[in-house]
Amino acid sequence: MGNSLPIGVFDSGVGGLTVAKEIMSQLPNEKIIYFGDTARVPYGNKSRETVTAYSRQIVKFLLSKRVKAIVIACNTASAFALETIRHEIPVPIIGVVKPGAKTASIATRNGRIGVIGTEGTVNSGIYSEFLHEISPEIKVFGQACPLFVPLVEEGWADDLITEEIARRYLSGLLDKDIDTVVLGCTHYPLLKRVIGKVVGESVVLVNPAYESARELKRVLGEEELLNEEKEVPHHIFYVSDGAEKFREFANSILPCEIIETKDVNVKTF
Amino acid sequence: MGNSLPIGVFDSGVGGLTVAKEIMSQLPNEKIIYFGDTARVPYGNKSRETVTAYSRQIVKFLLSKRVKAIVIACNTASAFALETIRHEIPVPIIGVVKPGAKTASIATRNGRIGVIGTEGTVNSGIYSEFLHEISPEIKVFGQACPLFVPLVEEGWADDLITEEIARRYLSGLLDKDIDTVVLGCTHYPLLKRVIGKVVGESVVLVNPAYESARELKRVLGEEELLNEEKEVPHHIFYVSDGAEKFREFANSILPCEIIETKDVNVKTF
Repeated sequence: MGNSLPIGVFDSGVGGLTVAKEIMSQLPNEKIIYFGDTARVPYGNKSRETVTAYSRQIVKFLLSKRVKAIVIACNTASAFALETIRHEIPVPIIGVVKPGAKTASIATRNGRIGVIGTEGTVNSGIYSEFLHEISPEIKVFGQACPLFVPLVEEGWADDLITEEIARRYLSGLLDKDIDTVVLGCTHYPLLKRVIGKVVGESVVLVNPAYESARELKRVLGEEELLNEEKEVPHHIFYVSDGAEKFREFANSILPCEIIETKDVNVKTF
Repeated sequence: MGNSLPIGVFDSGVGGLTVAKEIMSQLPNEKIIYFGDTARVPYGNKSRETVTAYSRQIVKFLLSKRVKAIVIACNTASAFALETIRHEIPVPIIGVVKPGAKTASIATRNGRIGVIGTEGTVNSGIYSEFLHEISPEIKVFGQACPLFVPLVEEGWADDLITEEIARRYLSGLLDKDIDTVVLGCTHYPLLKRVIGKVVGESVVLVNPAYESARELKRVLGEEELLNEEKEVPHHIFYVSDGAEKFREFANSILPCEIIETKDVNVKTF
């Protein structure tokens, strides 16, 4: 059967590796085929149409690799493309937004939730939408943080400048008396320490990656697609540009050593 | 003849508008067709192959609009793609790097020049190459500043945080006793005040946009392609994504009001 087939995971670049890491931890038998669209990163400031077109090409590429399920490990692509693409393909596909919203709704005590992410994710209002489906009383406050991704990619995750920028971005949210913040971009868990310092201990930080991996496990179980083989899985990483640079960054994030990354021309899919 | 045909100008996004602005000022009779590759911005962290492929598509698009000359208003694309594409097309094409290098070689008194730009431009070593052609004794010191572009796009060009980041990036160059800095990315002229404050008055800032427009004027004169008509030219702006957002930004930079921008699918070229 298809249980030994891999799981396709994709992101605009390296951010989705935080999701891949959670999947490796919660589903240690599963093989991952990761695609990072490094030739067209970032997605956060691009339009719904463009992000959907890019996501569709990547999904076709992953299907050509015979994946049994797909995880959109990118908040912007989850916000813009998931609902459209779900109806076009024969395998289960999940995003990071819905699981993230669910966790936040459980974590909040006062019903006031901050959502931080790219411009695309925040302006789409998708977290509000899911949170209001769960509970119409929840108040959601969004804040785009466009500099967070380049700061992470510059390697300044633990830096006083990053803390200062975080303070600027987050002070408005803190004024709204939120008690929970959704890290609505897959890069942001890498800034957890700095963000946590700025918002203070009383505010819960929600990392949708964790809950997405749980949701994946649930869906695979339901569809009887879990891999029961006990061998150590061989993950494969594809990018659309700069394989070597990606490999270095990935090896600083993942628990396993990536031996090889492959360049692929996704535009032909 | 072709003298009334437009000039094609392209960049990965909005940065090239600083070059378009110089062309409008020095060649007020010339029509510009501008293309900003906003669907795939930024180019600075992408590979030579990818940047060349993207540039080739855009050049084909501009040629389909019957331009009489092309300006690559992007340092990364000038560094990676200009020499290859020059041999493939029937019209003159100029970049921003060679004119920038020439100005810097004239401006320096002690022969020690700093070059700041994207990772792609700085690591390509292209400014050193041109500067050493002019004078092998010149010492060139490069510094990539990956956060400058997102800072400009965030609207924080005049900000204490930007000044702090500039100080971090530029202190190494100042230690090398440089007396000239090339603003080797078309976004950077928008940070001129902050960069000038950090490097001090004794260091000359070279903006390649100015010299590129002069070079264009020279080439058009040589080829007898200058437009002598005195009517006010009608410029047209194309982007690969987010026309409205581009228009707003462009109107904050350019001396003329952009009434309309058009979305175009450059990938089909």
